[in-house]
Amino acid sequence: MKIGVFDSGAGGLSVVKSLLESNLFDEVIYYGDTARVPYGTKDKNTIIRYSLEALEFFNNFDIDLLITACNTVSAYALDEMNAQSNYPVVGVIEAGVMALENSSIKKDDTILIIATRATIGSKRYQKSLEELNYSNIIALQTGLFVPLVEEGIFDGEVLDATMRHYFSNIKIPKAIILGCTHFPLIGEALQNYFNSKPILIHSGDAIVEYLEGQYQLSEKRERANLKIFASDNVVGLREIAKYWL
Amino acid sequence: MKIGVFDSGAGGLSVVKSLLESNLFDEVIYYGDTARVPYGTKDKNTIIRYSLEALEFFNNFDIDLLITACNTVSAYALDEMNAQSNYPVVGVIEAGVMALENSSIKKDDTILIIATRATIGSKRYQKSLEELNYSNIIALQTGLFVPLVEEGIFDGEVLDATMRHYFSNIKIPKAIILGCTHFPLIGEALQNYFNSKPILIHSGDAIVEYLEGQYQLSEKRERANLKIFASDNVVGLREIAKYWL
Repeated sequence: MKIGVFDSGAGGLSVVKSLLESNLFDEVIYYGDTARVPYGTKDKNTIIRYSLEALEFFNNFDIDLLITACNTVSAYALDEMNAQSNYPVVGVIEAGVMALENSSIKKDDTILIIATRATIGSKRYQKSLEELNYSNIIALQTGLFVPLVEEGIFDGEVLDATMRHYFSNIKIPKAIILGCTHFPLIGEALQNYFNSKPILIHSGDAIVEYLEGQYQLSEKRERANLKIFASDNVVGLREIAKYWL
Repeated sequence: MKIGVFDSGAGGLSVVKSLLESNLFDEVIYYGDTARVPYGTKDKNTIIRYSLEALEFFNNFDIDLLITACNTVSAYALDEMNAQSNYPVVGVIEAGVMALENSSIKKDDTILIIATRATIGSKRYQKSLEELNYSNIIALQTGLFVPLVEEGIFDGEVLDATMRHYFSNIKIPKAIILGCTHFPLIGEALQNYFNSKPILIHSGDAIVEYLEGQYQLSEKRERANLKIFASDNVVGLREIAKYWL
């Protein structure tokens, strides 16, 4: 199976990592819109427009399936993208919610959703969890974690201060939904911040689990072949990929 | 005089503030490329391409002069923009350097330049200061200040930690060049961090001073008429403008 991965920038590489490690795919074509990143601070219409433009990029490749690694794209543009493509476009939000369902988390456990302003504003995670009768949901925009991760800050004083800024007044969660592709890189710091060692819901692992449930995928012996493209500096993105993957 | 102000996003409003307060202009047309902000983390070619596209926006208005409020645009795209427009395009870097020259700062005083990764990488400020024989220049990319300001964080624990992150190992400066339009909003915090109370070079004040030197501008009684446009959510930008101006 040849799959495309679309992301607003470099963050989706955390999803690619899970895809490669699964050994379930033949080829992964990654496209990051690094010239216009980030999406998570922008308007709904802009997010939809950019996401539809990304489909044009994938016209050059004969993909079987497209994953929108970016949670903000998954929150706003999935229906529009599916309407304009002849392959399925799958987002990470539904996958993340399913991963929570398959975990040991109970319906009245406290669940913390952290994501960009746009993703939280869409209420997509919140509504999905409410429909499944989760009763203790905290949804927080934690946009500052994005530039911190992009600066390579995964621990230390600035991250600690930023976590206190966002979390000092909330209930201790049993699970954290990492609702942005950058956040797995601070997963350990988040678990250390909350002494409860919450379960982390990771979009990359969730989407692999989700695709295994939806499609007949057979494990292969080899890692998928990975090709990386970007709308801005592709050399820079390939450097980041070496480090992240 | 009818002037255009081009910025990558909302930050240029700190320059607009100075322009309005000067009472030297009839009309100010502001265009923020909020759909593709930020520029300061992006590639030279992308910055130039976006800046040239902005000229098309100003074709709709009969402006006498265009100011590139964004330091990153000023660092990379000024020559290209001037080559393609029939009015002068003026950047903030030359103005900032002139403001330093007109200050009480001596050639061997320590001068700290803070800006985005792209602006620092261009070495435009550094080269200009070296040509004028300043001998103690520290140039630092401090990109994290941008999202902090955009989140409305102008003081407090997160900003303090971020300042320590960037500044703990540098010499105490006599002057700080605020090489990004967002940074005037944390000017007070920067002065408090360094007990030396360094002089702050502010792009907005500098450009007013610069234009007064270059053009025959006569002080008017009234504030300029301001029109604000954006490539993304213009309502959001006008809300920010109410708060910043």
